[in-house]
Amino acid sequence: MTEHTGESVFDWIDARAEARAEAGLTRRVRPRAASGGALDLAGNDYLGLARDKRVVGAAAAASMRWGAGSTGSRLVTGSTELHTELEYELANFCGAQAALVFSSGYAANLGALTALSGPGTAIVADQHIHASLIDGCKLSRADVVVAGHRDLPQVTRALSTRGERRGLVVTDSVFSVDGDTAPLAELAAVCREHGAGLVVDDAHGLGVVGDGGRGAVHAAGLAKSPDVVTTVTLSKALGAQGGAVLGPGRVIRHLVDTARTFIFDTGLAPGSAAAALASLKALKEEPERPERVREAARRLSERLRERGFRASEPSAAVVSVLAPSPEVAVAWAEACRERGVLVGCFRPPSVPDQVSRLRLTARADLSEADLARAVEVIAEAGASAGAGSRPR
Amino acid sequence: MTEHTGESVFDWIDARAEARAEAGLTRRVRPRAASGGALDLAGNDYLGLARDKRVVGAAAAASMRWGAGSTGSRLVTGSTELHTELEYELANFCGAQAALVFSSGYAANLGALTALSGPGTAIVADQHIHASLIDGCKLSRADVVVAGHRDLPQVTRALSTRGERRGLVVTDSVFSVDGDTAPLAELAAVCREHGAGLVVDDAHGLGVVGDGGRGAVHAAGLAKSPDVVTTVTLSKALGAQGGAVLGPGRVIRHLVDTARTFIFDTGLAPGSAAAALASLKALKEEPERPERVREAARRLSERLRERGFRASEPSAAVVSVLAPSPEVAVAWAEACRERGVLVGCFRPPSVPDQVSRLRLTARADLSEADLARAVEVIAEAGASAGAGSRPR
Ligand SMILES: Cc1ncc(COP(=O)(O)O)c(C=O)c1O
Ligand SMILES: Cc1ncc(COP(=O)(O)O)c(C=O)c1O
Repeated sequence: MTEHTGESVFDWIDARAEARAEAGLTRRVRPRAASGGALDLAGNDYLGLARDKRVVGAAAAASMRWGAGSTGSRLVTGSTELHTELEYELANFCGAQAALVFSSGYAANLGALTALSGPGTAIVADQHIHASLIDGCKLSRADVVVAGHRDLPQVTRALSTRGERRGLVVTDSVFSVDGDTAPLAELAAVCREHGAGLVVDDAHGLGVVGDGGRGAVHAAGLAKSPDVVTTVTLSKALGAQGGAVLGPGRVIRHLVDTARTFIFDTGLAPGSAAAALASLKALKEEPERPERVREAARRLSERLRERGFRASEPSAAVVSVLAPSPEVAVAWAEACRERGVLVGCFRPPSVPDQVSRLRLTARADLSEADLARAVEVIAEAGASAGAGSRPR
Repeated sequence: MTEHTGESVFDWIDARAEARAEAGLTRRVRPRAASGGALDLAGNDYLGLARDKRVVGAAAAASMRWGAGSTGSRLVTGSTELHTELEYELANFCGAQAALVFSSGYAANLGALTALSGPGTAIVADQHIHASLIDGCKLSRADVVVAGHRDLPQVTRALSTRGERRGLVVTDSVFSVDGDTAPLAELAAVCREHGAGLVVDDAHGLGVVGDGGRGAVHAAGLAKSPDVVTTVTLSKALGAQGGAVLGPGRVIRHLVDTARTFIFDTGLAPGSAAAALASLKALKEEPERPERVREAARRLSERLRERGFRASEPSAAVVSVLAPSPEVAVAWAEACRERGVLVGCFRPPSVPDQVSRLRLTARADLSEADLARAVEVIAEAGASAGAGSRPR
């Protein structure tokens, strides 16, 4: 009977939901207000530019001038002069030959990986790469070898045993959950030696790492390498939305012709393109911002470790603090929120090692008082949530 | 030697580029200026809302108030009250139980398909579905049967022979290239009979088809079905950017917990969410806009057929006109552009049947004079490009 009302078709979903609820893995959308008093250590607006007057002003002006949407695929009506300018400025800033803007960092990663590999390619991927890169690997139908986290010998072995197949090594520069970094120069050397390409997702490096925030690929001296391709997002340090691929001109032209998430997706909204452009400009005018973020992250991590927490040592903006269980992680984050500090709470399956943790992000505009308050609240909240802090 | 400079790693790209060039399939990004005199029959801004004062005003105000970007995943800091309001209004307008907003229609399709199927699921997909649905099918690792275009008997056969596996039928409502429509009521009945779910991509239906533009799923009386899930985009009739999934509450909650393009992607920019909200409001206030688009499309198609062109009979905004070859299609589109009319030019691999064509889109604000001029220009350009028109 149920069959004929259609009610039972998605019954399997309820069973899954119950299993997740029992494992403490139910997620909840919590909309925020436009202005809250909370101290935000959860967002990826590392440079504090998402609300910068120059940036929001540029977004607003571009919406009025160009329209709210780009109205079509980048190959039809979705490319405005703003998109081209942004591509030029991004490539220029990061020292790459050329750039191509996508509607998100996720789309950029899918587009780059599928267009640069395909069945018969051997992809060697770090175990901790971002979900969008994992999906890109899957979509590409390449043969994927998952190498241990930051494990150069494994990468080398996989490349040297791949036979005649094209090779592509894939990694984050700054890993999104823990904030640790990939050995880019060494990876590039191994790739070079074995005739493989290297794709680096610099989502958390751009604006934070390297000279003036030019990113980890630039810092490793790889921005102009003919065998290195970089993906970035406009949604983190640049405070906007969108993503881009940077690399040799022929790679970028190849993406225009073949990347499905470029060809079959509506172009980035003009307001978001203009915001990213304005952020790049601000970054060039204030090259000290990136170092301020990194310094704040280091201090945050140090003090948490002094308090006995297992905080990661940051090289960029992200600090992760391990929690004993998903339930404690949720209670801990909630207790922080109640005390006015927003922190990220990452649980399986969004963590590569299945260990739940808080994910804290530093910002260039955090004051000494903010940092002190954050540490105090996280320690207090940890104690109340059973996270095993050592209260002073 | 070349191996050691890395120059040769992407050599294979050049060979591909040459093959495409020989086949006339090289693509080019042509950025447009903010205001051009051209008559636009190429974009997907069907209702003419992308530049509507209310819509761009809302986008600008939201950027100023909420920031240029949403700053994080929807599950961390990327959900604002605007996102929740948009989800409420979308569900309400389309008659669905609930809705979830993604950063693009592409991401919505990937998220819905992967979360609702998976290995062991039997997906039955129309041959002409959009690239983003195809990628969703691939990513899901489900067993995919490709059914002929609008071929109900094939869908029925595939469902009835799938054994114990979960079943999911996937289709566009209005197919993106030709603008023809799926037999939604019949598909839903077949799914119901066979205990399968139905996923409908209403990207080109929302705002154009059905009562006040409530879309093809609403028009088919399926908006509240417990076994039907709808995806939409905010980037076409609503003139913004972003996408959404609409459906039963439990499906939406399941997506919050499991859809990778929801969990691991930065939330939609506040400006885009606000623009889509303002467009929905405009659509409710001016329910005659959708019929104006459809009427314009019908007239455009009729007159092109009178001139001897093979134009599709539209039920929504899209009219396709077949071309004898990719080269002629490009030359034809180019000749239109030179005469001040922008048209889409679709070639392999962006066409499901490998036939190149012009893709024309109607808008609610096309005047009789615009239509007459468009037909004149397309006919003239067709003659000059060798598209075999019958000049009067
Ligand atoms: C490492 C990494 N790559 C890619 C992305 C996707 O970028 P976006 O959110 O702009 O789509 C993210 C985060 O969302 C990320 O952390
Ligand atoms: C049928 C269909 N579905 C989905 C999409 C993707 O939507 P978006 O461009 O908003 O990502 C498009 C077009 O781009 C489309 O035509």
